[in-house]
Amino acid sequence: MLSQRVFMATPPRLFSVTRRVLSSATVSASKFEGGVSMVQGASRGIGLEFVKQLLESNDKGHVIATCRNPNGSSGLSHLKDKFSERLRILPLDVTVERSIEASTMSIKETYGHLNLLINASGILSIPEVLQPETTLSKVEKSSLMLTYEINAVGPILVIKHMWPLLKAGGGSGTERSVAVVASLSARVGSIGDNRLGGWHSYRSSKAALNQLTKSVSVEFARKKDPIACILLHPGTVDTDLSNPFQRNVPPDKLFTKEFSVQKLLTIINNTKIQDNGKFFAWDGQEIPW
Amino acid sequence: MLSQRVFMATPPRLFSVTRRVLSSATVSASKFEGGVSMVQGASRGIGLEFVKQLLESNDKGHVIATCRNPNGSSGLSHLKDKFSERLRILPLDVTVERSIEASTMSIKETYGHLNLLINASGILSIPEVLQPETTLSKVEKSSLMLTYEINAVGPILVIKHMWPLLKAGGGSGTERSVAVVASLSARVGSIGDNRLGGWHSYRSSKAALNQLTKSVSVEFARKKDPIACILLHPGTVDTDLSNPFQRNVPPDKLFTKEFSVQKLLTIINNTKIQDNGKFFAWDGQEIPW
Repeated sequence: MLSQRVFMATPPRLFSVTRRVLSSATVSASKFEGGVSMVQGASRGIGLEFVKQLLESNDKGHVIATCRNPNGSSGLSHLKDKFSERLRILPLDVTVERSIEASTMSIKETYGHLNLLINASGILSIPEVLQPETTLSKVEKSSLMLTYEINAVGPILVIKHMWPLLKAGGGSGTERSVAVVASLSARVGSIGDNRLGGWHSYRSSKAALNQLTKSVSVEFARKKDPIACILLHPGTVDTDLSNPFQRNVPPDKLFTKEFSVQKLLTIINNTKIQDNGKFFAWDGQEIPW
Repeated sequence: MLSQRVFMATPPRLFSVTRRVLSSATVSASKFEGGVSMVQGASRGIGLEFVKQLLESNDKGHVIATCRNPNGSSGLSHLKDKFSERLRILPLDVTVERSIEASTMSIKETYGHLNLLINASGILSIPEVLQPETTLSKVEKSSLMLTYEINAVGPILVIKHMWPLLKAGGGSGTERSVAVVASLSARVGSIGDNRLGGWHSYRSSKAALNQLTKSVSVEFARKKDPIACILLHPGTVDTDLSNPFQRNVPPDKLFTKEFSVQKLLTIINNTKIQDNGKFFAWDGQEIPW
C-alpha cells in the first residue's frame, strides 16, 4: 500500500491562501457554526473512529476526513452515505507534500478555516517491509527513515500547511476558546518512560514527533495564535496497527476504538490554551518526555 | 561535501566477526594495555579535539579516528605525524552503512576490541542546503530527513556494528569497569527544556538520538554487557558547526574546544555502569529528556 501515491497539480502558493483565509474567517465561522474538524489518516482504526464520533456527537459539526486512498476505505464510504452533507473526504498522503497543499486549498475554498486538526496517521509495521525491532542487531536504516518520514515528518508538514486555517478558525463554532491540533503520539515515544527498549524506529519517530510538536507549540504561543497543540497516547487500542502485538496485553488494557476515542475527544474538547505543548494519555494524565 | 561518499567492497558478514572477536578479546586487551578508543566524526571540531586529547592524555592509548574523507583533514594529518604508532585513521561515512561495516572489520583485525566509542559527527547547517528553521513555515521535508539521517540514524548504526567489539573490550586497559559509548547530543534536543522553539530539524534529530540511545542502553543492561551508553551536551563550543549562530551567545558561555572536550573526557573517564542511558551536560549535570 505504501507505494500508492496521490498525484495532483501543484496548487497556487500558500502565501496567497493565508491572506485570503484571514479575510474570510468571520464569514466562514458563522456559516459553519458547529465547527470544522479535520482528521488526517481517517481510512480505518482510530482515525476513522474519530470521524464517526465527531459526526455523531455534534449534529452541526463538519468533518474533513483525509487518507491516501479514499476509494479504498469502506468505513469512510459508509459514513459518507449517512452524513453526506457534513462529511468531506479528501486524498492526502503525508509523504507527498503536494497532496497536503492540495487539501489545504480545497479546505480553504469550502470552509475557510479549521477548528480542529487530528493527525491520526502512523505506522508501526508493514508485513515483509517493516517490523518493530526486538534488538539493536535488527535495526535497519530503511526502517528508521520510513517510520520517521511517516510518523514525525508527515504530521508536522500537515500542521505547517493547515496553520493559517487553524489560526483563522480558533475556537469559533466550538465550546473551546482555541483551535486544537491533536497528534497521535504513544507512550512508547516517551524517553523517560522507556524501560523495555526495542522498537527503535517507532520509539524514535514518536520522540521526534513530540519534539517537533513542542517547537511548534512554542511558536504558536509566542505569536499568540488561538491554537493549542497537544500530543495524545490512545492506550493500546484494538486496531490493525496493534493487532500483531496484542499477545502480551492484558484484556483490560486492550481498549476498543470506541472507548479510546471517546476518552481522547473528552481531552480535546476540554483543551485550553494552557494545555498547548502537552502530552496526555487517554485518561488525561500527562506523560513525561 | 555531503555528496562525497566512501565506496568499499562489501565485507564478510558481521556474524563471523562477532564470534572471532570474542575469542580474541583477552589477547587483544593485553596487547593494547592503554585501551582502544574510536572517535567517529574526527576530521575537525570537537571530534578532532577528542582525538588529540585522548592521544596526549594517555601515552599507551590507541585511537581510531574516522571521518568521511581522511585526506581532507589537515588536523588529523598533523596528529598522524606526531602519533603515528597510536593513531589509525579510517574512512567512515555514517550515511553509508557499508563504510561502517568496513571500519568494523578493519578495527577487528588490528585491535580485536574497543573500550570507547565517541560519536562526534553531526550537522546543524550547510550553506545553501540546510538552515536551522526559525519558523514552522520554513520547515522542509528534505531538511528534516537529512538531519535525521546524519544525526540520529548514523550514530546508531555505528553503535550497532561496533557492539561486538565494545562487548569484547569492556573496561580492559582503562580505569573503568565498562566500555563507554558517548554520543554527542545537545541541550536543544531536550523536549522538556525546549523553551525557544525553532531549529525543528536539529532538535528533532537529537531527541530521536536520545530515544534511540535509551533503547540501546536498555538492551545492553538486560544482556549484562560491560558497556555504558551516555549522551553528552558539550555546551556551545566555538567550532564550524556553531560559528554562524554565535552572535547571541555571551562570551563566557562560548567554550573553546579544549575546555569542552576536557570536561567531556572527565565525564567519560568516570562513567560507571549505573550511568548507562543517561544524558549529561559538560558540567556533569543531568539534562531532562
